[in-house]
Amino acid sequence: AIIVYRLPWTWKCSKLLMKFIHAGLNTIAMILAIVSMVAVFEFHNAKNIPNMYSLHSWIGLTAVVFYSLQLFLGFAVFLLPFAPVHLRVALMPIHVYSGLTIFATVIATALMGITEKLIFSLKNPAYSASPPEATLVNCLGLLLVIFGSLILWMASRPHWKRPPAENAKILRPTGATPEGTEVESTMTNSSNADKSDLRSSTEAARKQNIKFDEAGQRSTM
Amino acid sequence: AIIVYRLPWTWKCSKLLMKFIHAGLNTIAMILAIVSMVAVFEFHNAKNIPNMYSLHSWIGLTAVVFYSLQLFLGFAVFLLPFAPVHLRVALMPIHVYSGLTIFATVIATALMGITEKLIFSLKNPAYSASPPEATLVNCLGLLLVIFGSLILWMASRPHWKRPPAENAKILRPTGATPEGTEVESTMTNSSNADKSDLRSSTEAARKQNIKFDEAGQRSTM
Repeated sequence: AIIVYRLPWTWKCSKLLMKFIHAGLNTIAMILAIVSMVAVFEFHNAKNIPNMYSLHSWIGLTAVVFYSLQLFLGFAVFLLPFAPVHLRVALMPIHVYSGLTIFATVIATALMGITEKLIFSLKNPAYSASPPEATLVNCLGLLLVIFGSLILWMASRPHWKRPPAENAKILRPTGATPEGTEVESTMTNSSNADKSDLRSSTEAARKQNIKFDEAGQRSTM
Repeated sequence: AIIVYRLPWTWKCSKLLMKFIHAGLNTIAMILAIVSMVAVFEFHNAKNIPNMYSLHSWIGLTAVVFYSLQLFLGFAVFLLPFAPVHLRVALMPIHVYSGLTIFATVIATALMGITEKLIFSLKNPAYSASPPEATLVNCLGLLLVIFGSLILWMASRPHWKRPPAENAKILRPTGATPEGTEVESTMTNSSNADKSDLRSSTEAARKQNIKFDEAGQRSTM
């Protein structure tokens, strides 16, 4: 779901379709998370194991709470057509950051869960004797870290972002000026910047940079 | 060390001093990591516990190996004055990404280590009975996640980047054009962009955006 906006084949989809894919995959993930949480609580209750005592459970539940909040807010602000553009602009960097942080936290939670399970399940031979099962599951944990790193790499490359050209049409009905025009006018302003003073022009360039960064983030809005 | 370039008080330092603070703090962290790894191996050997069997140890050692590589490459490319600017430009996004990914991985490793320690050390009452010690250490683990999230937030905000004005003087001796001039010329080009065609101008804006993004990253080089 995270990298939907980074896949070139989705660039040919309409932006609304991309949003539906993103929201749909995240909704499926949320349903699976709820099913697995119910399974964990029922397993604990059936085996008379206390619930919510471990760090794994604390961080895991925190992540799920934030994830459902993220899903709800994302749906209300970015999918439904009611939120004004300035609210979308303000929330998009937070939405992106929260999504990636929740993703990293979920991977950390999974690693803690794997550690717990290996310690509790492997008794004869114990985990510390490195039976083949322990080595296999350790490799799976390592693959999970590699998977997480790759997703974060893909999500954080600026030149893997979807080109903003397609946005103009969809942003217009919600009352915004088309993005192309906005970027264009920012560019025109820049040529009026004082070029004789290096410091002030680089200061202007920095503000420009921030504006462009925001415009870049707006491209997945 | 990660947020040195994000702290306004360091913006008043010369860039070389900032680099020395960044490299120095990371070197101290590396030394502490080596000391603690030696301590772990000696503890395991003294207590006849096998070494390197757990997922915690695998991921932790991987992180330390990548961290030392990161430190060595960072020192060779960004601190010593020999690397050409195009190499620095190419490696900077990788350096930033690796640094943040290693940081997140180290936090995940610490959480796994805390989980292991709580399971092994708390026996009477057990971890699952939630003695006060377990609750305290769980809270510390949660604080570690909050700490990691805050650092990643500070490091990933584009407007918390150091203004590029101060760079020009230091980049010049290594053969680069001063950054201000470069940004300025990019701006001038932009006003020549074809304004009659929305699609081509937003395409140009996207390339512009990438250029600016790179220039932004160059500001901590």
